Amino acid sequence: MKKGIIGIDIGGTNIRAALVFGRHMKHRLNIESHARFGIDRSIQQIHSAVARLHKHASAIGIGIAGIIDSRAGVVRYSPNLKGWNNVPLARMINQTFRLPTRVLNDVNAICLGEWTFGAAKGYRNVFLFTLGTGVGGAAICEGKLLVGANGFAGEFGHTTIDPAGPKCICGQQGHLERYVGAKYIVARYRNKLKRQRSSSIRLQNLTPEKIAVAAKKGDQIALEVFSETGYYIGVGVANILALLDPDIVIISGGIARAGRILMDPIRKTASRLVLGAEHRRYKIVAARLGDDAGILGAALFAKSATKNRKV
Amino acid sequence: MKKGIIGIDIGGTNIRAALVFGRHMKHRLNIESHARFGIDRSIQQIHSAVARLHKHASAIGIGIAGIIDSRAGVVRYSPNLKGWNNVPLARMINQTFRLPTRVLNDVNAICLGEWTFGAAKGYRNVFLFTLGTGVGGAAICEGKLLVGANGFAGEFGHTTIDPAGPKCICGQQGHLERYVGAKYIVARYRNKLKRQRSSSIRLQNLTPEKIAVAAKKGDQIALEVFSETGYYIGVGVANILALLDPDIVIISGGIARAGRILMDPIRKTASRLVLGAEHRRYKIVAARLGDDAGILGAALFAKSATKNRKV
Repeated sequence: MKKGIIGIDIGGTNIRAALVFGRHMKHRLNIESHARFGIDRSIQQIHSAVARLHKHASAIGIGIAGIIDSRAGVVRYSPNLKGWNNVPLARMINQTFRLPTRVLNDVNAICLGEWTFGAAKGYRNVFLFTLGTGVGGAAICEGKLLVGANGFAGEFGHTTIDPAGPKCICGQQGHLERYVGAKYIVARYRNKLKRQRSSSIRLQNLTPEKIAVAAKKGDQIALEVFSETGYYIGVGVANILALLDPDIVIISGGIARAGRILMDPIRKTASRLVLGAEHRRYKIVAARLGDDAGILGAALFAKSATKNRKV
Repeated sequence: MKKGIIGIDIGGTNIRAALVFGRHMKHRLNIESHARFGIDRSIQQIHSAVARLHKHASAIGIGIAGIIDSRAGVVRYSPNLKGWNNVPLARMINQTFRLPTRVLNDVNAICLGEWTFGAAKGYRNVFLFTLGTGVGGAAICEGKLLVGANGFAGEFGHTTIDPAGPKCICGQQGHLERYVGAKYIVARYRNKLKRQRSSSIRLQNLTPEKIAVAAKKGDQIALEVFSETGYYIGVGVANILALLDPDIVIISGGIARAGRILMDPIRKTASRLVLGAEHRRYKIVAARLGDDAGILGAALFAKSATKNRKV
């Protein structure tokens, strides 16, 4: 049997993995990451995912949130994974499975996946961001993945929208994530409701996805929430257009599926705020590969990184 | 005599040019660009500059403000140069002088110059911005000059600092240039004076440089002006750090020479606003090459662009 590359996407809740052959995946699996129980449990879970796939693999690529030193294979710091400080993840996995192992930022992996097989295919300058609990970002600049000096490039969620704005989870002020992270979208809906208007949604376990469904059915408050969310994202996207001048901006993550109720205000705000909109060509579109992108991208990264060298 | 490369830096007021040999320049000249008389007069001036240098040259590099299509050698649009729309500048110069001619954005040229010979030497990820009438920017990402999809990357002055802020010269709202462009620095000083405090400066022909001198002598209003200017720049720099994660941020242009009264508030604000400042390594420093950078960078660009091909 031809060997594949293991692609792994480690999130705060789930670990997704598969044996990757180009655009195709085999033995796809999804297990809990147990991040809340600390780093040892999570690393056990990663081991158990690899153990189910490694016999038919020639290399391993792992996407994980945080500042990643890809050259050393070390997770320097991860804001959403407790206790992950200077963890030599590549070496740990390699010691057990004896396969070349590469680690990269999870949104970089998604971006590589969408760039190679998805919405960004064929473009030389790309910006991709993810909307979820947090707001991540990644860029392809002049045909190269932008990693940055510290492995920290693309932190779109922590760009400043309003320097006098409310405090972000990271401690700083007025960051984009503080306006459009999932729980702030929900909070915006609840706040608007307090002003004595009626809601068409059950308020228990409210999520941005449920608000999106309500908006599409004509719920006025839900529509307002998406209009405002899109506005804030649009402010951030305008800055991306000014600084990176990408061919294409891609929105990934569950909320991106909201469609026009989100896309229209993003596009409108971005083109209103950016210099020389009439002289620019760019697209703002939804991602295409869903959860596959991170797995495919991690495998792509391992493939390109191991092509010319051994561990 | 060994042949050099002509480096030209075209500004709204002056055209600077020289015959470049690596880091060295010969026959340096500085003539008026006559931009206010329209494009034909400016092109005459460019011709006359080249005419004085071309006998000992093997190629020509021209840095000019605006959206530049470097592949085609065309100035698509230039906000500060009247009438420059879709001008095939490289072809026009080449037709007269029969030398391979390349055109690039002026701040990109400065960035290439500082990257090769100046403050950014040896770094893989660089952001440089210029403070003057306008606020320009340019980036080196993973060892490559970031040009962007439309030749429009690095527009730092037109990133949004406050989406509800005052109108920028470009028509959009709350852009950084609207807070820290030269005339707004001067306006801030004048406004503070109106609140009945005394000034140590002559108010005629006031410039940011004069305010900087006053600040260093202890003029309280001038110090406040630089503190606020640095704050706004720091907000923008924090976004640069979050998105591009550069090793080094370089401040170019006359105002950059103000020193600590400007640098301190920039550094303080940037590190306060950016995610994970304690996990990042970066520097924020002044440019080193002054007006040489744009000439050297334009020549470098012509050299690298003509190495493998003919016009």
